[in-house]
Amino acid sequence: MTTKVPVILITNDDGITAPGIRALVNAVRGLGRVVVVAPDSPQSGMGHAITIGQPLRLDKVNMFDGIESWQCSGTPADCVKLARDKILHSKPDICLSGINHGANHSINVIYSGTMSAAMEAAIEGIPSIGFSSLDYRFDADFTVAAQVAHGLAARMLSQQLPEHILLNVNIPVTTPENFKGLKICRQAYAKWEEQFDHRKDPRGKDYYWMVGKFVNMDKESGTDVEALKNGYASVVPVTIDFTDRKMKEWLETEWKL
Amino acid sequence: MTTKVPVILITNDDGITAPGIRALVNAVRGLGRVVVVAPDSPQSGMGHAITIGQPLRLDKVNMFDGIESWQCSGTPADCVKLARDKILHSKPDICLSGINHGANHSINVIYSGTMSAAMEAAIEGIPSIGFSSLDYRFDADFTVAAQVAHGLAARMLSQQLPEHILLNVNIPVTTPENFKGLKICRQAYAKWEEQFDHRKDPRGKDYYWMVGKFVNMDKESGTDVEALKNGYASVVPVTIDFTDRKMKEWLETEWKL
Repeated sequence: MTTKVPVILITNDDGITAPGIRALVNAVRGLGRVVVVAPDSPQSGMGHAITIGQPLRLDKVNMFDGIESWQCSGTPADCVKLARDKILHSKPDICLSGINHGANHSINVIYSGTMSAAMEAAIEGIPSIGFSSLDYRFDADFTVAAQVAHGLAARMLSQQLPEHILLNVNIPVTTPENFKGLKICRQAYAKWEEQFDHRKDPRGKDYYWMVGKFVNMDKESGTDVEALKNGYASVVPVTIDFTDRKMKEWLETEWKL
Repeated sequence: MTTKVPVILITNDDGITAPGIRALVNAVRGLGRVVVVAPDSPQSGMGHAITIGQPLRLDKVNMFDGIESWQCSGTPADCVKLARDKILHSKPDICLSGINHGANHSINVIYSGTMSAAMEAAIEGIPSIGFSSLDYRFDADFTVAAQVAHGLAARMLSQQLPEHILLNVNIPVTTPENFKGLKICRQAYAKWEEQFDHRKDPRGKDYYWMVGKFVNMDKESGTDVEALKNGYASVVPVTIDFTDRKMKEWLETEWKL
């Protein structure tokens, strides 16, 4: 580490007014110069959406005492892109996303706006972490999550890291006394069994609300779902290379294209 | 293969009226019972977005002679979920997405609505392929892409496959005479260098359009970008497990959480 004050970019997908991002800002504000660039409205389930078909707004706001903050009309991935190009004009030292109100373990990494912001940072070569609490309520208790965020951010800032490091961190609903600590895990294989709620509008036309039941199909050990169940915070290193190496070998042998 | 007629679900992200999906339907209509469920408007750059904050519409349309077709107000991932649950009421034999007007090689797999539909199918255990042509024009020539789609779909239907098989197939701008064939590849490491176009609205307020320049950072061989450059269609097997195994080992050794 140089003696230069590190720059910490913070974003989320619940929007800049969510309690979770406030908890994250307060958890790490002592570690460097914090800059917040977050969506002006909730973006849950946006996956890695980017906004190419319409213009983006970016407005300075005063939300966190003494912290430079901007709200953006785009997605979490848009926020990271705009922050880098139009606000910071260079790479921040790290990017933190969250704290999300609700789990982003297992397959949720694919649907999560919180994680898409962290992935966007990793594509840029900015070390990043997405934080999600299993407590999805507005008035969730972020005490343990904030401790975890502080610890991991400090660690990331104090150590030389491999390129494109990106962590998906989920925190169980627990108290500091009962918290078991961190566990490095792999992503559990799980899925959402959709049960669309089929309704009729006032004019008699059909419409559907997506609901869904989470199903963990992964009974092997070492998963994030298992760690969380046992009272640990799960830490899954995430890749931005989606190539399936095993399937590649299989295709090369079996299909001989 | 049983003698049962296979069910082929087709979707895309350019919307049901795009020429690319019509080319795909016509390319594979002889291979089984084709059912189309596609967005009612363009969804490019939607990544793996799902619609949870508003209701979805699903309307039967007559777009392709003799082919059951539905348009949906949601994202490509929504289309796959709704098709499975509300139209087919069971898994189709395969899911095909595209043909996209424009490349989805390398890092674009993360931003692509075309690929998110194919990934959603893979999560459900439906073998799937996303097809994208490097010809992004509305009146793109899909001759070679259609041949590739027919060949790979037929192959996928005729052979026992590993679970969660998912292919990202990109087709170069070429003619049948000059086409070099298929190549199994890995995803190139590349990124978009954003250059936001900064403008003032009629009331003098700032807004931004996302533009961007594609940069291939990957100089090693075996990538999709390289294959396409050499006149091949690239076939990248894609995983839905984003765990970075190498980074996991590194963390276990170095961080000892």
